[in-house]
Amino acid sequence: MHELYAPIREELSEVERMIRHELRSRHAGVDELVRYGCLLGGKRLRPALLLLAGRAFDRVTRDHLVLAAVVELIHTATLIHDDVLDEASTRRHLATVNVRWDTKSSVLLGDYLFTHAIFLAAQLPSNVPCRVLSRATRIVCEGELRQKSLRGDFTLHEDQYIEIIGAKTAELFACGCELGALFAGAPQASVDRMALYGRNLGVAFQIVDDVLDLNGDEQRVGKSLGTDLEQQKATLPLIHVLQAANAGDRREVLEIARRNGNHRLEALAPFFHRYDAFAYSYAVARRFADEAEQQLDDIPPSSAREALQKLTEFVISRSL
Amino acid sequence: MHELYAPIREELSEVERMIRHELRSRHAGVDELVRYGCLLGGKRLRPALLLLAGRAFDRVTRDHLVLAAVVELIHTATLIHDDVLDEASTRRHLATVNVRWDTKSSVLLGDYLFTHAIFLAAQLPSNVPCRVLSRATRIVCEGELRQKSLRGDFTLHEDQYIEIIGAKTAELFACGCELGALFAGAPQASVDRMALYGRNLGVAFQIVDDVLDLNGDEQRVGKSLGTDLEQQKATLPLIHVLQAANAGDRREVLEIARRNGNHRLEALAPFFHRYDAFAYSYAVARRFADEAEQQLDDIPPSSAREALQKLTEFVISRSL
Repeated sequence: MHELYAPIREELSEVERMIRHELRSRHAGVDELVRYGCLLGGKRLRPALLLLAGRAFDRVTRDHLVLAAVVELIHTATLIHDDVLDEASTRRHLATVNVRWDTKSSVLLGDYLFTHAIFLAAQLPSNVPCRVLSRATRIVCEGELRQKSLRGDFTLHEDQYIEIIGAKTAELFACGCELGALFAGAPQASVDRMALYGRNLGVAFQIVDDVLDLNGDEQRVGKSLGTDLEQQKATLPLIHVLQAANAGDRREVLEIARRNGNHRLEALAPFFHRYDAFAYSYAVARRFADEAEQQLDDIPPSSAREALQKLTEFVISRSL
Repeated sequence: MHELYAPIREELSEVERMIRHELRSRHAGVDELVRYGCLLGGKRLRPALLLLAGRAFDRVTRDHLVLAAVVELIHTATLIHDDVLDEASTRRHLATVNVRWDTKSSVLLGDYLFTHAIFLAAQLPSNVPCRVLSRATRIVCEGELRQKSLRGDFTLHEDQYIEIIGAKTAELFACGCELGALFAGAPQASVDRMALYGRNLGVAFQIVDDVLDLNGDEQRVGKSLGTDLEQQKATLPLIHVLQAANAGDRREVLEIARRNGNHRLEALAPFFHRYDAFAYSYAVARRFADEAEQQLDDIPPSSAREALQKLTEFVISRSL
């Protein structure tokens, strides 16, 4: 993937330095925790999108760098709180904060990273970033709350699932792309299309993430997998099986999904296979990725545009 | 206390309506949780301070109302996350979110309220509120992180304790007072003094809160008490005993404080009594309240100024 970042490599290194510079505390106990937290991000996909969106419109400013750091900090904050929600123990091959410290530290660290992100955004002269970012994060939280309140509800329909991941994941993708184009001075219609690119890409990304949670290799992905089933979260492969299955299979699948214990994944594997659940999910993800790609139509050719295009491939083919 | 709110009674009702109006969701499960969350605030002290600070400089605008709702939402978010940190079960005579739902719901609800607060603040034309609020909340989080990392550390000195509560509690008081004066068009020196009023008032308030946690009547206060000792959090009364006690008593107090189980409070009571720990703490709180009061010196007499003055009495004499 990292070759896709070539058009913005230097800027991304600068963003990395900014994040490390910001996340310091003069109190040793706090400092250790905060530095650890910033290791847990990973692909730096959201800041890369923001910078590429700017570069696609020929302009990457100092504000872009700040905003790229901001979206990554917000993303990291949500990861750390997610690991509490999912009771996950590994992230990016490292112990999660809730395991290495405890749930309380995770709560506070997530809060700290988020408030710090908003603090950075608020240093910019315009209040548009705070407006766009706080709107997006509010939608992210509402999506997470909705998903939480629907745990154990296996009547969830595919449309509702897409709505939820559109909020909890795709909104931050959309907001990064929007800010990237906006701060490059792109016309409003182009800003809107970049946001739509990000939103569709985010949905495709999350569908694949949910497939990997059921079907991925924990060593390779580097984080706890199988947590969705443990948390009784219905994601696309399971939703598809429940829609497509005959009555007998459906009953059995529901019984397994609601069962206690840790062997649900093995017990469900034959059903995922029988109903082509992973292939089905990848096909849906591909539709969203294609929709994302179409939004790039009127951007003049450049290495940044090409990278944005290739990212619509990457989100489907990625195995981590 | 509510008679102190007389100069801003109508505005405070409007703020209450705004909060209720904002905290709605079209998703039933989310809506129930969010509405419950907004019942958990209490005295509405922070919005009252913001409005009184405006009124003291003769001007309460629409922006004041929005900002008052914002500080209350931020405060409520911190309460909900605090209840996770303290494993508290009761708040304002109601079950806490972590008890009525679970820790995960508390994490998400706190996040939702906080992001919603920033979203509201970002709707104002100026980006000063986002700047001031995000700076304050970042300091609040750092204070909480620091307190968390010092749990079980009974060598904590009084100065460090004051620094920590100055961050985790007083910063939001200061920020509310600052914004109130600022948006009333007060001169910078007066804005700074109002912030200093808030900061000192907040420290006094938290010292008394910590005394009530050890010495209050749970029925009357309406929230879980004794959580500081359970969480091995050294607050002023205990810090004082450890400073003032002879070597034998000190050893015994440390042994009790570090002991497991729920009878630490009863076992420590004789020592709090012997070393006048509560009276000592109230005297320190009074010093900060007096310091707060002095900041009001150059404000022309008005019912708002009088209310701000009386609040410096109230924070000491309050029993809830």
